[in-house]
Amino acid sequence: MKREEALQYLKTAKGQVEAVIKMVEDGKYCIDISKQILASISLLKKANVKMLNAHLGSCVKNAIDSKNREDVDTKIKELGEIIEYLSKVI
Amino acid sequence: MKREEALQYLKTAKGQVEAVIKMVEDGKYCIDISKQILASISLLKKANVKMLNAHLGSCVKNAIDSKNREDVDTKIKELGEIIEYLSKVI
Amino acid sequence: MKREEALQYLKTAKGQVEAVIKMVEDGKYCIDISKQILASISLLKKANVKMLNAHLGSCVKNAIDSKNREDVDTKIKELGEIIEYLSKVI
Amino acid sequence: MKREEALQYLKTAKGQVEAVIKMVEDGKYCIDISKQILASISLLKKANVKMLNAHLGSCVKNAIDSKNREDVDTKIKELGEIIEYLSKVI
Repeated sequence: MKREEALQYLKTAKGQVEAVIKMVEDGKYCIDISKQILASISLLKKANVKMLNAHLGSCVKNAIDSKNREDVDTKIKELGEIIEYLSKVI
Repeated sequence: MKREEALQYLKTAKGQVEAVIKMVEDGKYCIDISKQILASISLLKKANVKMLNAHLGSCVKNAIDSKNREDVDTKIKELGEIIEYLSKVI
Repeated sequence: MKREEALQYLKTAKGQVEAVIKMVEDGKYCIDISKQILASISLLKKANVKMLNAHLGSCVKNAIDSKNREDVDTKIKELGEIIEYLSKVI
Repeated sequence: MKREEALQYLKTAKGQVEAVIKMVEDGKYCIDISKQILASISLLKKANVKMLNAHLGSCVKNAIDSKNREDVDTKIKELGEIIEYLSKVI
């Protein structure tokens, strides 16, 4: 299940961010810290892809199946907005 | 119309990439070139957001309105894939 | 101090990722979760910029001041590699 | 030479952006257009990495070799700024 997969990535990312914090506190080398921050970002990007795919495969599909015009329009509007936000952040 | 807006961004991006090529050929300063490359990327990201919003507002909406189950499923699958590709590229 | 600023961003990002995990476990809405994941990525990107600026302002400057040719070459090589990795991840 | 490699990527990117413009004008499918825009962005990111590596290997090295303190400081400041800008754009 895609939501479960997102959760796994998030938990791994959390452990990684904690490790990075310890690296900074222990005075580790900046470049090594930067690499680990980037690895955390990579995990969060994967979590986000899984979450949005979970969304498409459940919430969006359900809205379409419900034939509730307003609900479908909201889902489409939200997708457009999240793609825009995604493109700004990453 | 969002497709028209995407086209405008693309045309501006093309002019910008041409200007960057000239900067490299004229031996301009690397950092200035890098800034202009990044500005071109920024324009292309905006073009892409407009294009995907055009897609949501027309192709996806039409598929939903057609009540063609297979077409809707294809549209949802494609959206998931393009979000994944987008997250890899940028 | 830039390393301190990076640490603050990292600690905030850690709290945010923990909150996102709770959101997933509590069955919150996918789009809201996605937005919070993207906000966490944004914080980590800022932490990374601070860390690389800390690196330039201390490690790289010290290597240059030491006039140790080998050390300077290593620093330059590392910077090139981290910029390449950064461009792949984000 | 890295500047030459950057130029090649830029020229390929230019051709790709031109092809994308034609796709939009010819009314091609949004998702196919989006994929080609993302491919153009990918090329420009590679051009940028090459350009910044060219910068590190020539301008920055020359500044260090010149032992001109002010010039070195400028180069370091610029690198910090371009990394920050890079992280905002992509």
